[in-house]
Amino acid sequence: MAEKKLVEAITSMEEDFAQWYTDIVKKAELIDYTSVKGCMVIKPAGYAIWELLQKQLDERFKETGVQNVYLPMFIPESLLEKEKDHVEGFAPEVAWVTHGGLQPLQERLCVRPTSETLFCDFYKNDIQSYRDLPKVYNQWCSVVRWEKETRPFLRSREFLWQEGHTAHATAEEAEERTIQMLNVYADFCEEVLAIPVIKGKKTDKEKFAGAVATYTIESLMHDGKALQSGTSHNFGDGFAKAFGIQFTGKDNTLQYVHQTSWGMTTRMIGAIIMVHGDDFGLVLPPKVAPIQVAIIPIQQKKEGVLEKAYELRDRLKGSFRVKVDDTDKSPGYKFAEAEMRGFPLRLEIGPKDIEEGKCVLCRRDTREKIEVSLDEVEEKVRDLLGTIHHDMLERARTHRDAHTYTAKDMEEFEKLFTEKSGFVKAMWCGEQSCEDMIKEKWSVTSRCIPFEQEQIAETCVCCGKPAKKMVYWGRAY
Amino acid sequence: MAEKKLVEAITSMEEDFAQWYTDIVKKAELIDYTSVKGCMVIKPAGYAIWELLQKQLDERFKETGVQNVYLPMFIPESLLEKEKDHVEGFAPEVAWVTHGGLQPLQERLCVRPTSETLFCDFYKNDIQSYRDLPKVYNQWCSVVRWEKETRPFLRSREFLWQEGHTAHATAEEAEERTIQMLNVYADFCEEVLAIPVIKGKKTDKEKFAGAVATYTIESLMHDGKALQSGTSHNFGDGFAKAFGIQFTGKDNTLQYVHQTSWGMTTRMIGAIIMVHGDDFGLVLPPKVAPIQVAIIPIQQKKEGVLEKAYELRDRLKGSFRVKVDDTDKSPGYKFAEAEMRGFPLRLEIGPKDIEEGKCVLCRRDTREKIEVSLDEVEEKVRDLLGTIHHDMLERARTHRDAHTYTAKDMEEFEKLFTEKSGFVKAMWCGEQSCEDMIKEKWSVTSRCIPFEQEQIAETCVCCGKPAKKMVYWGRAY
Repeated sequence: MAEKKLVEAITSMEEDFAQWYTDIVKKAELIDYTSVKGCMVIKPAGYAIWELLQKQLDERFKETGVQNVYLPMFIPESLLEKEKDHVEGFAPEVAWVTHGGLQPLQERLCVRPTSETLFCDFYKNDIQSYRDLPKVYNQWCSVVRWEKETRPFLRSREFLWQEGHTAHATAEEAEERTIQMLNVYADFCEEVLAIPVIKGKKTDKEKFAGAVATYTIESLMHDGKALQSGTSHNFGDGFAKAFGIQFTGKDNTLQYVHQTSWGMTTRMIGAIIMVHGDDFGLVLPPKVAPIQVAIIPIQQKKEGVLEKAYELRDRLKGSFRVKVDDTDKSPGYKFAEAEMRGFPLRLEIGPKDIEEGKCVLCRRDTREKIEVSLDEVEEKVRDLLGTIHHDMLERARTHRDAHTYTAKDMEEFEKLFTEKSGFVKAMWCGEQSCEDMIKEKWSVTSRCIPFEQEQIAETCVCCGKPAKKMVYWGRAY
Repeated sequence: MAEKKLVEAITSMEEDFAQWYTDIVKKAELIDYTSVKGCMVIKPAGYAIWELLQKQLDERFKETGVQNVYLPMFIPESLLEKEKDHVEGFAPEVAWVTHGGLQPLQERLCVRPTSETLFCDFYKNDIQSYRDLPKVYNQWCSVVRWEKETRPFLRSREFLWQEGHTAHATAEEAEERTIQMLNVYADFCEEVLAIPVIKGKKTDKEKFAGAVATYTIESLMHDGKALQSGTSHNFGDGFAKAFGIQFTGKDNTLQYVHQTSWGMTTRMIGAIIMVHGDDFGLVLPPKVAPIQVAIIPIQQKKEGVLEKAYELRDRLKGSFRVKVDDTDKSPGYKFAEAEMRGFPLRLEIGPKDIEEGKCVLCRRDTREKIEVSLDEVEEKVRDLLGTIHHDMLERARTHRDAHTYTAKDMEEFEKLFTEKSGFVKAMWCGEQSCEDMIKEKWSVTSRCIPFEQEQIAETCVCCGKPAKKMVYWGRAY
C-alpha cells in the first residue's frame, strides 16, 4: 500500500536520530543535495517556511526601529584583517576569490562569512556626528563558511541568515540593544516557532571572534543535543578603534562608537524538525506552516465532494493558508503525505460528512480526530491552530525540562553525560582550562551562563575550586 | 540658507545628466560606494524601495503559480561549461573562487552570474515523469558579473535580482510561460513603477547566451537613452540536451524538457530615478515609495501643532506609509529634503491651518499645492496618490512618444542619432552585419523587434535590401 510505503521509508527517531533527520529533509522535500559539496538546494517546501519565518522576524525587527540595507558579498583581505581577533576566528574558514573575469585580482576577496568588517568600513564614512546615531541596520543575505562536516540546515557551506549591525553613542545603549535583540529572538522562538529557549551569556571561550560579550539563546533538540539558536554580540568600541569609527559628541569631543551585531539563520528550520518532528515526519508550528489546513476529499469522484472541498477552501483562504489535495492519489496516501509535510491540520470531507453537515479535522501534533459541524469550521480551525501552537510549545518545554539535569560534582557530571542526553546545569570556576578539559573528555561544551542563576554547589564541577557561575553544559549541533 | 544649499548641490539634469544621476543616488541616500570596486551599499532609503518592489513583483509571480527556492551561489567550472553558448557568454565576466579556508580547491567555483546551469543540475534529478512538470521556480538573490565600467544600480559587479527558471513538457508551454512572464514584467512596470515599456523580441545578436529566443521590455530614460528593464528567455530543449534533463511522458517515451528563465534587477531603481526624477531630486511612484506622505509641521513649537501632526499620522498610517518630520530643522529645509527623497505627498500643517480646520497637500510630481479640509484628508490622500501614479505614467509615456522617431533610410537614421536622443524605429533586413555596422558607427543597438510591427519602409535602413522587421534602435545603458 502506498501509504505504508511512504511512512515505512523513514527511519524511526529512536533507532537512528541522524538518519531520521536526513529522511525528513528529503521526504518532506525541504532540500536537495547539489554538485557543490556542502551546499544545498532549499526546495519550495523548505523555502516557504523560511519566507514565513523571515517575514515575522523582520516585522519584529522593524517594530524596534531596525532598517534593512544591503552590503557587498565580498570583503577585501586587508579589510578582514583589521580586527585581530575577528580575522583569527574567520580566516581559516572563508572562501577566496582570486580572479575576476580573465584577470587575477590585485587583492584577493573573501566571500563574507559575516559582515562586521564591511559595516565598519561603511559606518566609518556614514557616521560623523551624534546626530547620525544610533544606526540600527540589518541585512538578509547568504554567507559562506568553508565547513568540513556539513548537514542540511544545521551546518552548510552557504546558508541564509539575517545579520543586524548597530552603532551607538554610548556603551550602555549598545548593551541595551544587544539584550533587546536577544529578547526579540527568544520571544520569536517561543511565539512563532513554539521552541522554548534558555537565555544567557557565552563564556569567553565560546564568544564571537571580536566580541566583548556574546549572548545566546539555546534550545534542546529531541535527541537531547543543544542547538545555539540565535546570538547577539556586544563589541564595545573594539571594532570602532580598529576601523576608526568616530563621531563628534554633543560636548564637541571626538568619540568612538559602540557596536553590536546579532544573527539568526536557516538552521532554525533544522531546529523545527528536531524539536517538533516525529516518526510520521515533519510537524510544523502553525505560524510558519506554508499550508495550515490540508483539505483531503474522500471519494472525491462522487458528486458534490470536490465542490464542497473547494467551497471550504474558499471560505477558509481569507484567514488561513489552505490547499485542497485533489490529485488522483488515494486518501490514505494523501493523509501520509500531509503528515510527512507537517501541515498542522488535515480536513477530511466525504459524501457521508456532507450529508451530515460535518467534516473531520485531524491535528498533526497529536493525530487526534475531531468532528466539526460545517457551520463552525472557521472558528474551530482558528481555535485548533492556537491550541496546537500552545501544546507544541508546552510539549517542547516539558521535554526540555525532563532532559535538564544538575550535577554537583564530577562523578555526577560524568554519569549524566555517559547515561543521559540533555542539558546539565553545573557550577563553574570561570577558568577556560575546565571548559577545555570537559570538552576534550566528553565533547561537552558550555552552552551559556544563564541569566537565571541557581546555586547548585559551592565549587566548580571540574576543578573543585570556588564556583563563580552556574553554567548550562551540553553536546551541541 | 540650508534649504538652498541642499537643492543647489544637485547638478541640473539638462546640464549634465550623468552627474545629476550620481548626485541623486548620493543626496537621496540611496547608495554608498565601498572599498570593493564596483560594489555598492544599498542604504535604507534605497533598500526600502527594493523591498516594496520585491513584495509586489513576488505577489504577481505567485498568482501565476511561481514557487520560490534557493540554490547555491557557487557553480563548479565543469557545470558552467556544459552548455557551449552559455559559457562563452559568461566566462569572461565571472569571479572565481579558488581557495576554501586554507586549502586550494580541487575544482574552481564561479560565483553565479546567473543560475541556469545550477537549475539544470537540480532539475536533472528532480524531474522524472510528466507528473513532475511543470516546474515554475524562482529565486531572489544576488549575482556577480565582473564588469569593467560600473554605475550605481545600472551596472555593478554585484546586484540583486530575481531569476525565474521553469521546465515544461512541451515547447508550446515553454513559449507560453516566456510570454506570460514578459507580460507580468510589463504590467508591473506600468502599474507599480509608472514606467511605460515596449515589448518585443531581441535579435539573435542581442539574445541571452544559450537562449533560442529572448524577449525584452525596453523603457526610455529622460535623457533619451534606452534601458533594458526585464528579459524573458525561451531555451527550447538546448539546456535539457546539454544536461540530460529527461522525463517519461504520458505515452511512456523519454523526452527532453523545455525551459525558460526570466529576470528583473535592482537596476529598476535606476530606471525610477531616470524616468521620473527632476532637478529637485527623486520622484517616487506612490506604490514603491517607502514614505508616501511626509507630514511637516509648521511652527512646530507652537502648542498643538506637533500633536495635530501625530494625530494625522495616526489617522493615515493604517492605509498609507506616513512619517512626521519632527526634527529641529527649518520647515524649508524639511521641504527640500522631502523633495530630494521623492516622497509623493507632503502634508503641511501649522497653527493657522489647524484654526481653519485644513492642511496643505503638496504633490511631489507637479509641486502643486492643494488645500484640504482636515475631515477629508484620508480620502484626498488616496485620490491624490492614484492621480500621481496615473500622471507620472502618462508623462513618461508622452516623453517617450515625443522621443520616438522613425527613419526610412540611412540619412534620416544618421541625422536622428546625431541630433536627437531617443528610440528610432527603422526597418531591418535581419542580417547581423547591419547591426554590427550600426553599433560600430553610432554606438546604437537594436533594442527589440516590437510585437507591434509597423511598415515604415520596404528596405533595410542600413543595407537597402528587402526589410523583414521593424526594429527599435537606441543608445542603451
